[in-house]
This record gives sequence, C-alpha cells and structure tokens, in this order.
Amino acid sequence: MRIETLARQAGVTIAWRPFLLGPIFKKQGWDTSPFNLHPAKGRHMWRDIARQCERYGLPLCIPTPFPQHSLLATRIACCGQEQSWVSEFTRSVYSAEFGQGLDISDEGLLANLLLDAGAPAKRVLEVARTAETKSDLRNTVSEAEKHGIFGAPSFILPNGELFWGNDRLEQALEAARRLATS
Amino acid sequence: MRIETLARQAGVTIAWRPFLLGPIFKKQGWDTSPFNLHPAKGRHMWRDIARQCERYGLPLCIPTPFPQHSLLATRIACCGQEQSWVSEFTRSVYSAEFGQGLDISDEGLLANLLLDAGAPAKRVLEVARTAETKSDLRNTVSEAEKHGIFGAPSFILPNGELFWGNDRLEQALEAARRLATS
Repeated sequence: MRIETLARQAGVTIAWRPFLLGPIFKKQGWDTSPFNLHPAKGRHMWRDIARQCERYGLPLCIPTPFPQHSLLATRIACCGQEQSWVSEFTRSVYSAEFGQGLDISDEGLLANLLLDAGAPAKRVLEVARTAETKSDLRNTVSEAEKHGIFGAPSFILPNGELFWGNDRLEQALEAARRLATS
Repeated sequence: MRIETLARQAGVTIAWRPFLLGPIFKKQGWDTSPFNLHPAKGRHMWRDIARQCERYGLPLCIPTPFPQHSLLATRIACCGQEQSWVSEFTRSVYSAEFGQGLDISDEGLLANLLLDAGAPAKRVLEVARTAETKSDLRNTVSEAEKHGIFGAPSFILPNGELFWGNDRLEQALEAARRLATS
C-alpha cells in the first residue's frame, strides 16, 4: 500500500519480483503459515496487523481459511512484473484478501482486478497458465531463497542487502538512496 | 536502552517483570533461539540488529555462543524487580552480552554490574539463589505465557494488550497513555 508513494519520494525505482512463500516454508518443514504453527505469535501478529491497519486507515478482514491459495494471483503478477499494472494489481489482490476477506483463487475476481488495473485480463490469464510463466515463477522463488528471503514483503537492494517487512520499508528506501548516491 | 526515557516522556510507569524465554520456547519444541533454528531468518535478524544498533548509536558484539546462559542474571533481576536498580542492572546485562560479547553467566561480572547499579551485590546474589526467588521466577514465566508472550521485549498494558518488540515500544506507550487518560 505504501511502497510506490514512498519510493517516488525517495527517488528509488522498484523492480517487482512476485514470489511464493509456500515453497520456502515447505523447505523448513512448515506446511502452513507460521501464524498458524505458533498460536501465541499468530494471535499477536493478527492483533498487531489490526493496530497497523487502524494507524494506516486500512480496512482489515481476516481471511478464512488463512492462508488463501495465491498461486494463480502470483503467476499473474509474475508475468506482469515488468508491466505498469503490476503494482495496482498487487495492491488490489491484497485489499481483496485482507481488506474484504475475498477468495483470491477465484479467476473471475482476478480477471476483474486485472481489468481495474488496466491490464488485458483475458490475454494475461492465458499467459499466466503457460509452462513459461510457471517456470519463471519457480525461478523467482529460487532467486528469493538465494537472497535469503524468508518472509514477505522483503526488499532487496542492488548490493544484495535484505530488509524484511513493512516496518523496514523506510530504512530500505533510505539505504537504496544512499547506495545510489554513493 | 530506550524504555525509561520514552516512558518518562509519555508519563507512563513501568513495572519490570524479568522472565525467561527458554521455558516458553521449550514448550513449542524449540531447544534454542529461533535465530539458530531458522538460519535465513537468523541471518537477517542479526543484520537488522546491526543496522538498528548503528541507528541508535549502540555497540554490537554478537555473543558466542548465542544464546548465553541468562538464568542467574534473570533471577537477580527477578528479585530486584521492585527495586530502583533493576532498570540499570538490566540495561547493563544487555550491554555486557550484546555490546561487549561478555559471558553473562559469570557471577563476578554480575556482582560488578549490581554494584555499578547501586545494589547490595552480596545480599542480592544470596537472595537470587533462594528457593523463593526460583519459585517467583517460575511464576513470572507462567504469567508471561498466560499473557500470550512469545518473545522479548514484550510490553503488557493494564488491560492485557500485548505489544512485542522494540519496534512497537512507541505504540505501546501511546496506547498506555490513552488507556490511562480514557
């Protein structure tokens, strides 16, 4: 919700790399979100998210079940990662899941979100299902792992420096700015 | 390092409740810190801590081994939790472990930190080893678990609301302030 505005203010360019956490969790032996695996931590995280949403003026509707099936949405974002619509589409998928509690595996919903973001929905949905996109996304997940990513959102600087989480967005942008001007 | 100054500015009173994370981790089947159990996350956490220390102007020396044995230090803090020296002693134990990489299970070191904090070191060390202190600390750990605590530092408001981590200190104090004036 915040990255594009803050990045513009900082003069930093964002290269979106949509990826899946599921395969990264699976390699650690986790079959679901750590929010579910560690109930005390999960309870605090949802409460913390509610407080953060209140501070940012964002609606929150905890999705059931959580996590949702995000494979198709991520494949769509993956094949649109160089397109201007990727940021609006990504925001709208998160708003649908966490602001409205909608089922983001629903192809009709995703088609509407694509159209709202100005994307050629029918064509994009076809490309999202090709073997090439599936392979691209697998490669992006491997790249994420190589960068040491273990959660989302994560921010990687051109020098490989990793910042994890909304709480570190400002610091990541500051560091990116310093790197660009050094 | 920050709580006393910020709490004073916010007009909020701190009641220290020193506890151990080890027994809480153990109930989740963890025999060490999550920093060690999840290497990718651990690598980022140490890097993040280094960046935070730089921002706060604090020295950092990653202790080896990590975690250190904190049982005696925590028992000392537990029997001093209502004493004025508890905050300075606590800060100095963290500085010794994370700023200087010292062994905080060393009784001689802890005695010196107590004296520096204005505590009657010899008497406190005696009390720290009594059955009563051991039992008090076990009770504090049980209380922490009942509050849903899973990490440190954690901040609990009088209404039970939990905030976890240095990143949430300001929000915890704001909420405590609102609660006190509502």
